Amino acid sequence: RIDGQRLWDSLMDMAKIGPGVAGGNNRQTLTDADAEGRALFQSWCEAAGCTMGLDQMGNMFAERAGTDPDALPVYVGSHLDTQPTGGKYDGVLGVLGGLEILRTLNDLDVKTKHPIVVTNFTNEEGTRFAPAMLSSGVFAGIHTQDWAYAKTDAGGKTFGDELARIGWRGDEEVGARKMHAFFELHIEQGPILEAEGKDIGVVTHGQGLSWTQVTVTGKDAHTGSTPMPMRRNAGLGMARILEKVDEIAWSHAPHAVGAAGHIDVYPNSRNVIPGKVVFTVDFRSPDLAVIEDMEARLKVEAQKICDDMELEVAFEKVGGFDPVAFDETCVSAVRNAAERLGYSHMNLISGAGHDACWVNRVAPTAMVMCPCVDGLSHNEAEEISKEWATAGAEVLLHAVVETAQI
Amino acid sequence: RIDGQRLWDSLMDMAKIGPGVAGGNNRQTLTDADAEGRALFQSWCEAAGCTMGLDQMGNMFAERAGTDPDALPVYVGSHLDTQPTGGKYDGVLGVLGGLEILRTLNDLDVKTKHPIVVTNFTNEEGTRFAPAMLSSGVFAGIHTQDWAYAKTDAGGKTFGDELARIGWRGDEEVGARKMHAFFELHIEQGPILEAEGKDIGVVTHGQGLSWTQVTVTGKDAHTGSTPMPMRRNAGLGMARILEKVDEIAWSHAPHAVGAAGHIDVYPNSRNVIPGKVVFTVDFRSPDLAVIEDMEARLKVEAQKICDDMELEVAFEKVGGFDPVAFDETCVSAVRNAAERLGYSHMNLISGAGHDACWVNRVAPTAMVMCPCVDGLSHNEAEEISKEWATAGAEVLLHAVVETAQI
Ligand SMILES: NC(=O)NCCC(=O)O
Ligand SMILES: NC(=O)NCCC(=O)O
Repeated sequence: RIDGQRLWDSLMDMAKIGPGVAGGNNRQTLTDADAEGRALFQSWCEAAGCTMGLDQMGNMFAERAGTDPDALPVYVGSHLDTQPTGGKYDGVLGVLGGLEILRTLNDLDVKTKHPIVVTNFTNEEGTRFAPAMLSSGVFAGIHTQDWAYAKTDAGGKTFGDELARIGWRGDEEVGARKMHAFFELHIEQGPILEAEGKDIGVVTHGQGLSWTQVTVTGKDAHTGSTPMPMRRNAGLGMARILEKVDEIAWSHAPHAVGAAGHIDVYPNSRNVIPGKVVFTVDFRSPDLAVIEDMEARLKVEAQKICDDMELEVAFEKVGGFDPVAFDETCVSAVRNAAERLGYSHMNLISGAGHDACWVNRVAPTAMVMCPCVDGLSHNEAEEISKEWATAGAEVLLHAVVETAQI
Repeated sequence: RIDGQRLWDSLMDMAKIGPGVAGGNNRQTLTDADAEGRALFQSWCEAAGCTMGLDQMGNMFAERAGTDPDALPVYVGSHLDTQPTGGKYDGVLGVLGGLEILRTLNDLDVKTKHPIVVTNFTNEEGTRFAPAMLSSGVFAGIHTQDWAYAKTDAGGKTFGDELARIGWRGDEEVGARKMHAFFELHIEQGPILEAEGKDIGVVTHGQGLSWTQVTVTGKDAHTGSTPMPMRRNAGLGMARILEKVDEIAWSHAPHAVGAAGHIDVYPNSRNVIPGKVVFTVDFRSPDLAVIEDMEARLKVEAQKICDDMELEVAFEKVGGFDPVAFDETCVSAVRNAAERLGYSHMNLISGAGHDACWVNRVAPTAMVMCPCVDGLSHNEAEEISKEWATAGAEVLLHAVVETAQI
């Protein structure tokens, strides 16, 4: 059993760094607040007797030694970065839940054959630098490091420069570490566990994602003196495309979702008809064919709308991953742990993307989920109970110990 | 006759200050570039022998003395501020055309009975601080100075603080000046004069405007893990309202226009369903009843859309003016001038708002318009010919001299 109060206190201490405006957090990746959060995590890991590794993407690896010098480590972890108006648990629970495992093993003076490493992956959220799960993606060999370093935020700053600026670029080659297994504890971010009254989600699959950045170009013109028939209103084109995005996602519901969270209008002046709008369409489904269908229909429909309105439209895929099936042995370890501990559980498909989805490409991987209130996440009001967090961390402990062997 | 080349050279010199990214200008109000443009204008006025007045809203008044100490001045002018991606002529032509008149009268050594004052009104565009025509509005007693000082830009800076910061807050009481008449030369910003092949628009009326800021509130949530039926997507609500704005404006076309140029989405993250969208609807018509109908229908339709989607909606009127009929004597002076000079002309209703619309409340006022290429304005590609500028300034000269009397 872990110390639920200690885990909770650590969650609350981390939440003091990069506070939001409504009780949550704004600790976006590679900001000064991110650096501060990393330093706090590092100090906790060192106090727990770990050595800290740091790779060239800023991924952190806190290692507790094992008894067999030849055994590959079992990894646990998630991310400490947040959305601009994010919650206190999304990602953080997985990192600090991992730390709580090490603290518990220390308290019990239990040694494992395989070392255990707690990981904090850089830029999971993908708000400041798209795509999401950028650094676990480089770790898994999906993206090159140069490509990741060149990603820019809205202010034109690059990932590589910002990583260096905050002082968390390490020397370790990214992806050089080999993992015996990887486990990620995360809040569900959806409503299913709470609705079903289950303590634990045994994540068997993750749905896939497609981010298409759409640029609609019309012509800046005066809102007062430009007659209606002469207008090439990129904002109106965007509005019509957003309707189609919704229609397309509903046509596959409940096996798909779709929306645009990011919309930038240019020049964004009350008396200028928008000459350009850039927005990102997020489509997801557990079924790759559905994602491909949605992507294709978006392009056809948007092209039709823009042709009718004498607008130009361009598409760029700025993020994406295929649906994932997690490793059966690791998934069983999670299920067995929940069973052994007497927690109610059910199989889940993760609606969100996670570092585990990329790591799954290079190591046997599974995820543990705990409920969150009203399924709400990516919102400062995101909430979980101490009991849910405790149950999640205990299942993580047992799954990891089973895998790392005593 | 004025010196068309001198006027053009001054236009091009002013356009060097606050250059845009595509050949136009970004010399938004109360920026450092605005201060620089003002200083250049002041130096030209002083070289032309004028004394410069400056009021507490930063409105500039360059006076050329008249021969009758009791005669009220005839005012001419417009504004030197631009849109963020604005043209080189919108506003500037009216200020520098006024200066060109003074230079011409100096060259010819002609004295007028009434003094002539060239004016630069602060924040005509209204992009940085809504509403548009803010300082001419205070001059005409429509707004209080305190209200105007408290207006904030997107970064939270106030008009009053920024005016002081750039060093152009004067001591003169705003609106204390009495005007014998006011004339504003401006580019049409619409397609009519060019289409009709006319040199000069004799502006008899200005259409009215309504700016309604709409705030749609839903709930920030994860784009991946939130099922479609649980979403309260403020971005989708905005999209549906924008469709209605277009429909409402078309229902009154060609006697109305409507669009939204300003749209801000929160938190504007690719994987967060927008929890809030703020946008401004711009409706215009020469007919007050039509404006009122459009405003009312917007509220009804937006409320209906938001009720259906479990969104909240709130409306705030952030700008507006009623349709204007200019002074018949001043309008005749413009028409007579065009006639006398042999320029083809036609009556026009201004599609855009102008400082003249507010000044018309406190002084006999009229406007002179010249064509612009493709009717394009509020776009860096805004263009006019030297001949059009010359014709406009000559008509202004004759209308002013007729009114100021030799
Ligand atoms: N878990 C999570 O919110 N990850 C961010 C990537 C995504 O949008 O799914
Ligand atoms: N002339 C001009 O563009 N004025 C700005 C106010 C408006 O939007 O009409």
